[in-house]
Amino acid sequence: MVNILGVPFGGSSVPVIAGPCSIESKEQFLGLAQELKEMKVSFLRGGIYKLRTNPESFQGLGKEAYPIAQEVSHATGLPFTSEVTDPRQIEELHEITSMFQVGTRNMYNYDLLKELGKSSKPVLLKRAFSATYGEFLNAAEYILAAGNKNVLLCERGIRTFVNDTRNTFDINAIPFLKNRTDLPVLADPSHGTGLTELVEPVALAALAAGADGLIIEVHNDPKNALSDGQQALTTEQFKSFLDKADKILNVLGRSLHERG
Amino acid sequence: MVNILGVPFGGSSVPVIAGPCSIESKEQFLGLAQELKEMKVSFLRGGIYKLRTNPESFQGLGKEAYPIAQEVSHATGLPFTSEVTDPRQIEELHEITSMFQVGTRNMYNYDLLKELGKSSKPVLLKRAFSATYGEFLNAAEYILAAGNKNVLLCERGIRTFVNDTRNTFDINAIPFLKNRTDLPVLADPSHGTGLTELVEPVALAALAAGADGLIIEVHNDPKNALSDGQQALTTEQFKSFLDKADKILNVLGRSLHERG
Amino acid sequence: MVNILGVPFGGSSVPVIAGPCSIESKEQFLGLAQELKEMKVSFLRGGIYKLRTNPESFQGLGKEAYPIAQEVSHATGLPFTSEVTDPRQIEELHEITSMFQVGTRNMYNYDLLKELGKSSKPVLLKRAFSATYGEFLNAAEYILAAGNKNVLLCERGIRTFVNDTRNTFDINAIPFLKNRTDLPVLADPSHGTGLTELVEPVALAALAAGADGLIIEVHNDPKNALSDGQQALTTEQFKSFLDKADKILNVLGRSLHERG
Amino acid sequence: MVNILGVPFGGSSVPVIAGPCSIESKEQFLGLAQELKEMKVSFLRGGIYKLRTNPESFQGLGKEAYPIAQEVSHATGLPFTSEVTDPRQIEELHEITSMFQVGTRNMYNYDLLKELGKSSKPVLLKRAFSATYGEFLNAAEYILAAGNKNVLLCERGIRTFVNDTRNTFDINAIPFLKNRTDLPVLADPSHGTGLTELVEPVALAALAAGADGLIIEVHNDPKNALSDGQQALTTEQFKSFLDKADKILNVLGRSLHERG
Repeated sequence: MVNILGVPFGGSSVPVIAGPCSIESKEQFLGLAQELKEMKVSFLRGGIYKLRTNPESFQGLGKEAYPIAQEVSHATGLPFTSEVTDPRQIEELHEITSMFQVGTRNMYNYDLLKELGKSSKPVLLKRAFSATYGEFLNAAEYILAAGNKNVLLCERGIRTFVNDTRNTFDINAIPFLKNRTDLPVLADPSHGTGLTELVEPVALAALAAGADGLIIEVHNDPKNALSDGQQALTTEQFKSFLDKADKILNVLGRSLHERG
Repeated sequence: MVNILGVPFGGSSVPVIAGPCSIESKEQFLGLAQELKEMKVSFLRGGIYKLRTNPESFQGLGKEAYPIAQEVSHATGLPFTSEVTDPRQIEELHEITSMFQVGTRNMYNYDLLKELGKSSKPVLLKRAFSATYGEFLNAAEYILAAGNKNVLLCERGIRTFVNDTRNTFDINAIPFLKNRTDLPVLADPSHGTGLTELVEPVALAALAAGADGLIIEVHNDPKNALSDGQQALTTEQFKSFLDKADKILNVLGRSLHERG
Repeated sequence: MVNILGVPFGGSSVPVIAGPCSIESKEQFLGLAQELKEMKVSFLRGGIYKLRTNPESFQGLGKEAYPIAQEVSHATGLPFTSEVTDPRQIEELHEITSMFQVGTRNMYNYDLLKELGKSSKPVLLKRAFSATYGEFLNAAEYILAAGNKNVLLCERGIRTFVNDTRNTFDINAIPFLKNRTDLPVLADPSHGTGLTELVEPVALAALAAGADGLIIEVHNDPKNALSDGQQALTTEQFKSFLDKADKILNVLGRSLHERG
Repeated sequence: MVNILGVPFGGSSVPVIAGPCSIESKEQFLGLAQELKEMKVSFLRGGIYKLRTNPESFQGLGKEAYPIAQEVSHATGLPFTSEVTDPRQIEELHEITSMFQVGTRNMYNYDLLKELGKSSKPVLLKRAFSATYGEFLNAAEYILAAGNKNVLLCERGIRTFVNDTRNTFDINAIPFLKNRTDLPVLADPSHGTGLTELVEPVALAALAAGADGLIIEVHNDPKNALSDGQQALTTEQFKSFLDKADKILNVLGRSLHERG
């Protein structure tokens, strides 16, 4: 079990990490975070540095987002996680985040992983969309071997011949990995599907298959999101989802984590 | 909704089809079917003609299995389904099965599908492990266009770069297809994973994602099964699974189908 | 080496099979065949029964094409091959074709393969676009084991995450298979790419990698073809290609086959 | 056309880059380089920092290799290229290499690409084994947009369901990319196949399809190589290959590049 500032991953209490794809402004992030605080959300997410396929797409606010993230995390009392894309960001992001995220495009970036292995902050390691289970577990090993034992694995969909969905969420990965490692295994149904309408059913599926946590993109105004709006849930959709999620977990002897 | 001899697919009552990969003998199939009869199983499955990659593998009992299937179905009162692999089998199998199954290797066999379109028996159409959603829906269209409106779709895993599991169960397919067709969408977690230990979690996931039914391989003695033993559940594992399945369905306002 | 009516596959003389995707009319097929006769073409191809994803697409002329095929083959002196999609067609097509083709969607249709194994006509077996090398060789084994030793393998592209091309031509398959079997290994760059502009470079590549023959779609008027026009070569493009092909083969101690 | 220290990529003269997977010792690299110098080799390659799936595998000599690389490049008069895996290596490697290599695992490492865009040294950008053509071209755009116009693209195989070969060399990519960009398109048949016996036929295929250069792993003693020995050519195999390569290129109006 990995306990991060009182949020336990890997036990009968199942935490949900939620927030926008990118931090776009203080108003956006604070408003959303305050809504999420009223729900069973344990952790905030919000992109600061975004890896985008097209160099002309919005790449995140960068340093401009640092004070926003700190203020919102402080105001809501929720820990915050964001993606690190370059070893040279680690020192600064260490001050801002309670947990580092490694995105799908960086799972093979072993130099970055080795640096994170020296950090005292936990790491949420997303599976590369092209990674075998063995490669995924080996990537975690790069962090663990360097001394950082607080690693969370996250299945977020793989690339297949199917292109009606952004990725193919590999539901098999959840029980397969849980049988082979003691690390918590989370699910990201937002990237795993890429389509708002599929997020709830696939998130429920991930919980039914044993996921130890979820990370979900929620946006106050998906249609005007600067990135990934087509896969974000509205706060209303998200609230309705959490209710079902808790009941599914109850069947399996678990429940959504609630901050004390 | 497709109603087959009183078994409704596509409504709030969710049927389970269970049985061995292959019918191996009367003793094997009858014994297993009698155990299944005592559980919430609505339909029997059992292979008569098996398509095996290697021409020297066990190919099913063929005609020898006809009287066995009929007797077991009669003795238990459970309808029976089996795979048809050649248009020339249709006439004979029509007498034996309550529903034709089209396996993953035959989804593109449009001549077979057209013939089944003329049949009065329902068809359980499995997705080719290489099929896009569009190809899958078009294959169903071959049957529907020929006049047979009783088609069940079945997601059974796709081929990806992952080879620790036999297939990658495409959980996204369940809600995606249900949003695009009125045909019931079933799940086959046995082939979708290929590993006994993954069958329960992935089957529960499929139900959580909205599957309208399940088809699962159960065997009295998986270690000695003539085919696919490594993915079969024992009757005990299966019984314990059904209990959880029913509770997951209840969360979603559904329940396992029970024969009246 | 497989010798079909004087056309040797698998030796230093490399035959090319060419023709339209579908036989559309006598005028079309005869006109094209007469042009091809003047080039280094050893065999005619032309679809009679077409497997199309959409049931409303053109499905080939069927029986109507039989006399056309016979007349054109007779008039040009070129042997003719066409795809068989149903075991019930074998008897009739036996009269029309010098070689049966099994298309990519039927490679797993083992009932069809077993029937073809009993035929005295050679079989050009295309790889399923989802088949491993092992499955491909096992499919050939179904035909060989039934007694027909004249089997040609044909790589025609596989399905991958790439969707800018129709398929990904698996160039590795050519030398891999040639190292593991004595059967001739042909290449189909038309389906392997799906784009006219890629056919020549990939066809030359296949020859450089050791292919024992080619099957290429050529059409007198690709823009108005009833099927697959976007991947057909014009006769002019094809002629220019054959010239380069012969020179590439010469480097490797081979040459294009010419009818005596 | 990209001209690097007198080696032109993208014209009728086609350069070959060769060398060991990793620099293992001065003796190994110098001995091999002197043999390669006598052949039509234009550029040396040799890994200094190796990204290995398993953290316990040999990771390259690192800084220890710097003087070796410099000495060997000087002694042979051949320019040298090596992989950069971390933006913090750029400054040091700038002194050692004539061209940076970005490996398949770092194609999505946009922070690294942006830094390389500011460098005055050319960049050989390998395709991620999971990248679409669009993603590949966009990755190059990250370097170009930052000001560095000397980018070489390199197809090195993609990950597919085929696992008898290490990767599936995507031969279609060569002509497809050449039709869409003016950047030179190279081929890496060593990683594209992963098997020594396939390197020659696939390398010849890449040239036949229009590749503007090759990068090939050669080792004096493949069986005892510290990495990737199973895909290396011996110097003898390599020499025999170069002879055929030149002749294939001649058919297409090109030839192997020779240092003046």
